[in-house]
Amino acid sequence: MAPGPFIQIPSDLKPAGLNGPEQLAIERRKASFDVGQMTEYLYGKEYLERQAQLVELLSKDPALDKSGLNYMGRVEKFRAALKKDKRLAVLAREHNWDSNTIAHAEKLCDLPGPFGLHKSMFLTTLERMGTPEQQEAFLEPARRFDIIGCYAQTELGHGSNVQFLETTATYDEEAKEYEIHSPSLTASKWWIGGLGRSATHAIVMAQLVLKGKSYGPHPFVVPIRDPKTREMLPGCTIGDIGPKQGYQTTDNGFLLLDHVRVPHFNQLAKFAKVDLDTAVYVPPQNAALTYGTLTWVRANIVQDARTILMRSATVAIRYCSIRRQFADRDAPVFSASGKKVESQVLDYTMVQARIFPVLAKAFAFHYTALYMFQLYQENVSLIDNKDLSLLAETHASSSGLKALTTIEAAEAIETCRRACGGHGFSLASGLSSLYNDYLPNVTWEGDSYMLSQQTSRYLLKTMRSLYKDLEGPPKSFTVDYMRSYLRDPNAKATIEFSGDLMDPIFFIKAFGHRAAWLVKETLELRDGPAKRSWNSLLIELYKCSKAHSQALIVYNFSMAILKDEALNSRPALRTVMQHLLLLYCAHTMHEEGAEFMSSGYITPKQYSLLSAKIQEAMHSIRPQAVSLVDSFAIPDWLLNSDLGSSKGDVYERLFEHAVRDPLNSTKWNVDIDSDVLDMDGTLPQSKL
Amino acid sequence: MAPGPFIQIPSDLKPAGLNGPEQLAIERRKASFDVGQMTEYLYGKEYLERQAQLVELLSKDPALDKSGLNYMGRVEKFRAALKKDKRLAVLAREHNWDSNTIAHAEKLCDLPGPFGLHKSMFLTTLERMGTPEQQEAFLEPARRFDIIGCYAQTELGHGSNVQFLETTATYDEEAKEYEIHSPSLTASKWWIGGLGRSATHAIVMAQLVLKGKSYGPHPFVVPIRDPKTREMLPGCTIGDIGPKQGYQTTDNGFLLLDHVRVPHFNQLAKFAKVDLDTAVYVPPQNAALTYGTLTWVRANIVQDARTILMRSATVAIRYCSIRRQFADRDAPVFSASGKKVESQVLDYTMVQARIFPVLAKAFAFHYTALYMFQLYQENVSLIDNKDLSLLAETHASSSGLKALTTIEAAEAIETCRRACGGHGFSLASGLSSLYNDYLPNVTWEGDSYMLSQQTSRYLLKTMRSLYKDLEGPPKSFTVDYMRSYLRDPNAKATIEFSGDLMDPIFFIKAFGHRAAWLVKETLELRDGPAKRSWNSLLIELYKCSKAHSQALIVYNFSMAILKDEALNSRPALRTVMQHLLLLYCAHTMHEEGAEFMSSGYITPKQYSLLSAKIQEAMHSIRPQAVSLVDSFAIPDWLLNSDLGSSKGDVYERLFEHAVRDPLNSTKWNVDIDSDVLDMDGTLPQSKL
Ligand SMILES: Cc1cc2nc3c(=O)[nH]c(=O)nc-3n(C[C@H](O)[C@H](O)[C@H](O)COP(=O)(O)OP(=O)(O)OC[C@H]3O[C@@H](n4cnc5c(N)ncnc54)[C@H](O)[C@@H]3O)c2cc1C
Ligand SMILES: Cc1cc2nc3c(=O)[nH]c(=O)nc-3n(C[C@H](O)[C@H](O)[C@H](O)COP(=O)(O)OP(=O)(O)OC[C@H]3O[C@@H](n4cnc5c(N)ncnc54)[C@H](O)[C@@H]3O)c2cc1C
Repeated sequence: MAPGPFIQIPSDLKPAGLNGPEQLAIERRKASFDVGQMTEYLYGKEYLERQAQLVELLSKDPALDKSGLNYMGRVEKFRAALKKDKRLAVLAREHNWDSNTIAHAEKLCDLPGPFGLHKSMFLTTLERMGTPEQQEAFLEPARRFDIIGCYAQTELGHGSNVQFLETTATYDEEAKEYEIHSPSLTASKWWIGGLGRSATHAIVMAQLVLKGKSYGPHPFVVPIRDPKTREMLPGCTIGDIGPKQGYQTTDNGFLLLDHVRVPHFNQLAKFAKVDLDTAVYVPPQNAALTYGTLTWVRANIVQDARTILMRSATVAIRYCSIRRQFADRDAPVFSASGKKVESQVLDYTMVQARIFPVLAKAFAFHYTALYMFQLYQENVSLIDNKDLSLLAETHASSSGLKALTTIEAAEAIETCRRACGGHGFSLASGLSSLYNDYLPNVTWEGDSYMLSQQTSRYLLKTMRSLYKDLEGPPKSFTVDYMRSYLRDPNAKATIEFSGDLMDPIFFIKAFGHRAAWLVKETLELRDGPAKRSWNSLLIELYKCSKAHSQALIVYNFSMAILKDEALNSRPALRTVMQHLLLLYCAHTMHEEGAEFMSSGYITPKQYSLLSAKIQEAMHSIRPQAVSLVDSFAIPDWLLNSDLGSSKGDVYERLFEHAVRDPLNSTKWNVDIDSDVLDMDGTLPQSKL
Repeated sequence: MAPGPFIQIPSDLKPAGLNGPEQLAIERRKASFDVGQMTEYLYGKEYLERQAQLVELLSKDPALDKSGLNYMGRVEKFRAALKKDKRLAVLAREHNWDSNTIAHAEKLCDLPGPFGLHKSMFLTTLERMGTPEQQEAFLEPARRFDIIGCYAQTELGHGSNVQFLETTATYDEEAKEYEIHSPSLTASKWWIGGLGRSATHAIVMAQLVLKGKSYGPHPFVVPIRDPKTREMLPGCTIGDIGPKQGYQTTDNGFLLLDHVRVPHFNQLAKFAKVDLDTAVYVPPQNAALTYGTLTWVRANIVQDARTILMRSATVAIRYCSIRRQFADRDAPVFSASGKKVESQVLDYTMVQARIFPVLAKAFAFHYTALYMFQLYQENVSLIDNKDLSLLAETHASSSGLKALTTIEAAEAIETCRRACGGHGFSLASGLSSLYNDYLPNVTWEGDSYMLSQQTSRYLLKTMRSLYKDLEGPPKSFTVDYMRSYLRDPNAKATIEFSGDLMDPIFFIKAFGHRAAWLVKETLELRDGPAKRSWNSLLIELYKCSKAHSQALIVYNFSMAILKDEALNSRPALRTVMQHLLLLYCAHTMHEEGAEFMSSGYITPKQYSLLSAKIQEAMHSIRPQAVSLVDSFAIPDWLLNSDLGSSKGDVYERLFEHAVRDPLNSTKWNVDIDSDVLDMDGTLPQSKL
């Protein structure tokens, strides 16, 4: 529960002018489509029903209360998150939730907690890499929360380069045991979610050493804490790694292992293993499956990025339609009493130019997330039939999309926060914590600035194979746009007026052409006479990956407009979606204009048409904006924003948020010659 | 003091491989210039001596200790900041510090506190706008800290649009008093630094109402709290506005005034006033002086942005030269023992492309800050002689620069934080708190997205006057580049090879041409047949302001290379500075490439030369990088970063930071069926 209130506000005071709820009501009446229909189109009935039930249940549960979070320090936040994680586990057991419901409840609570990695990486790694016996031994108790696990891969000295991890697991043939050891300070496991104060077990990635030879990193289940006494087990030095920019509710931890022994059984042996009798290394049969899971993880990342955009846009658009500042210079409006009326700040084109692209991008990412889930499914069925033909393409695209969508989602939160002016800086905006908690997404699961190399490596390879045989490689998204390009590398856009910028096909072609052109240019530097080193090309490679990912997003969004039956049968939805598509495409093309012009595909004159198109699209979207974010159906309980709540009582809520601050519970002594600080002794004194 | 340590780390463990200090020593030997000489060139002896003395004094003062800050919640942080502000006040009195020393000490402490606005806006407003009698009554006690003040302009409902503030100050001719009143909830003062829990007095900006007529916002000194009892005075409802993304150490507050009366004397009357006897309004004589101060404030903002870039680059460059990840793909290096050696991540061109522009920009902003201070001085002497000719130019440029430099500095912190990979997310990086505390700079002192309209208005006006009479307007930075453009609007760059991109004059011309072209295009839309509304042009206007500001920065940086005697007499410094200039110019031109091409000044082919130039400049700067950030002479005590400290013992420090986290002081119960959370009862329980 939120503390306070510590100060009484005169109850007769109201906000001046039109109040927030009235303002939003006016906005909502402007929509040219049905919000409920859009919501259902986006999510489907099942999802929405589950969401409604969960919000009803969770938002009333005292253990899951969010109202005090903004006032808490690290220790209190961690307490709250542990409480929440325990409660969610109990609820899941009580209600017998399936995995979708568990995941949905987790997202609605939106509080990364100490069991987060237990429920994700610990369970899935056991599922994926454990033998049936190992699953019985570890997965079953883990599902019951009898043991709490974490996934300990990263070390103090190594994150990205997993091959160079220092922790060793040396097999003792005699004892049939592994000795797990941290040979140096930098070998300490580090950043491991749930390890710091919670986990009883860690899946430790360690260099498998057999008869003096190293076989690279392998996963081992290592008990680290006594589940009852909570003491560290012998040889383990464990702790929380300390305060962070966000994720304060999680105990990311470190772990030093001093010749800790685990039985042969504890090496997760579904793929690679060491034979118990002969102590011979048995390599994995097929690494392809690993990539399968990776695609699934990344499809989720793209979808989460979409949700981040939705949340950010919801806050900024609702608040900016309530906020007023300045009367219009050219065409001032006057109230009945003859006073100048100020404009809603959402009417300023400079505000629109900052936040409407976020809105449009939310839809763009939505379609690409759907595409990724589809691709994942296809891929899985193919792999089941030993067909690996989709694997490389899927892996490349998912890497590039992970990089692009996480970077853009992080940026979008900040853009929307700033659009709220001063009040955006209050934790009451709901965007500050969102930003600080979202940031690690850019770095983990493959640092986004590094990861794109995987995409580009595939792009170069594909172009090389097309050089050898233009008609050879089978159809795929990448092959298709590269082949088009190579057939007509000097193709030019034919647009003449901004009105020509209507056709999704134009954008599909243009984005494909630019991506292929970049790859061709880079390949020339790499394979041509210059033979440039890989390292010297990293900037170019990054651009290739970005261009490819944008082409894919443009393609998926356009395809919805062109082919999605569910959309096309609802003209009201399709119309507004078309504006969003055009805004997304024209805005992205404008941002990346230098590359489009460099490639020769568009001329400076054609480029200048984009501004008019963007303006036009923003103008069309303006009256739909509040209803569009309404259609995202982000529950107020999840949004947790005084600026963005669906009711719109912004100013009343800001006061409510203020008067509960514990700083207001005491008086403070400002006499510079006195040592007294807080005067009333009501605030807890930390002894630490 | 930092708490803990709560966990013992085996003392014999060392980081693997080359340790940080050795690594930095190697880097430092690579420099082709003398660090001390560069430092002195940048700051001058006096500044450096003062800094050394202050760091010696302050860093040893227990009241100013920073080591525990990262572990504190809001309440503890506020306590620490109040303690620090009191201590600084006492030290200033004890040592009889002049204003430069006070400001320097404040910057080194780097902890926004409850007296921040007292020491800045409260004192300067009294100095600037108070009569001698008012200064005696308010300024003198304020300087002694007998009263604590704040500057209460912004309201809950209005920040940017000061003209629409709701608070009224109605003059009662009879009583010779003003009645200050908040007529609505949104009229509440809001965001006011130091108001929440500290201030005894507020300078309240309120609509002056005289005989029923409103004369716009004027400043009033309003006593709000009893200095002794600390109780709110009758009619005042005051509180802290609650937790924020940063600035947690400051009590930004709200204030509702219920018909509060102050004597006629309390209206700050140096400029505008109400005659005591006749109750007639006497308007201000000359508003020009206000703009003078504004320029000074903004010159400081540009300089602060420079320091932010310096700090960010220092952390990222030192850490990335210690951090190693992956062996080089094309040319692996092997150690004596035959093992592959990993590359310093600073060697990856993709890392360089992210952080070297920040390094170069620090120098770029440095020169422009110097220019702004000069301009301010010139302007002041001119105004003293009633010459207002520099005023408009100065105001316009300073507005644009405020917008540009704050936005880019905020971005730079985040860029450098991300470049540090996972560890960048730890508060130990020193960059997270820096970011969250710096952010308001984008919003206050004129929201940066809105403020640039002031610049563009001037740019349009200047171009209009040149249209009327090309030779008429007297020389100024703006007139010069516009006139050049108008004389030869179809001018084209003549570069052919990346080697041609050497000449600062080329960049000066190019940036001027592009800025003028944008202004011309925008003016055509505004004044031409389309007669576009101001609002519909905000995006274009923003671009004009940005282009103008970049042209100015390029100009000032180039001029140093071309004309600065102090630099040119030290060839070693000049050489490295030239690389930095080229990187700044080429990188900025590349980023803004679409506009340069659109304007027709450069062709796509010429554009493509920039990449090679950037690569070349980065290559030249690489061996100088650590020494360049050393030359910034940011004291470790200010930097407060375990990743960026001058010694380089990164991994040892990260452990030290970890083991002191209070979360580690107790055991935590993870049994989902138990209500117990922390088990040992050592952590304070907040009752709030
Ligand atoms: C909040 C949080 C939670 C985490 N939880 C877990 C967890 O539960 N379990 C776990 O095992 N790990 C976890 N991690 C660790 C995370 O996976 C790593 O931080 C991440 O993989 C990045 O690795 P790094 O920190 O070593 O960065 P580095 O690789 O050291 O990156 C440093 C810089 O070098 C650059 N760089 C590195 N290699 C290259 C290259 N080849 N080319 C170009 N540039 C390069 C990067 O872009 C970056 O700018 C977590 C991290 C965070 C922040
Ligand atoms: C940490 C902090 C400390 C502060 N301390 C003080 C203090 O001590 N004293 C004090 O008086 N104030 C203080 N302020 C308030 C600060 O000055 C205002 O927040 C700032 O001026 C912005 O005004 P606003 O919040 O009303 O934003 P708004 O003007 O409401 O901005 C909302 C959005 O509208 C846009 N917008 C507004 N007008 C236009 C336009 N004409 N054209 C285009 N776009 C427009 C903005 O760009 C923004 O995106 C502080 C603020 C912060 C965050």
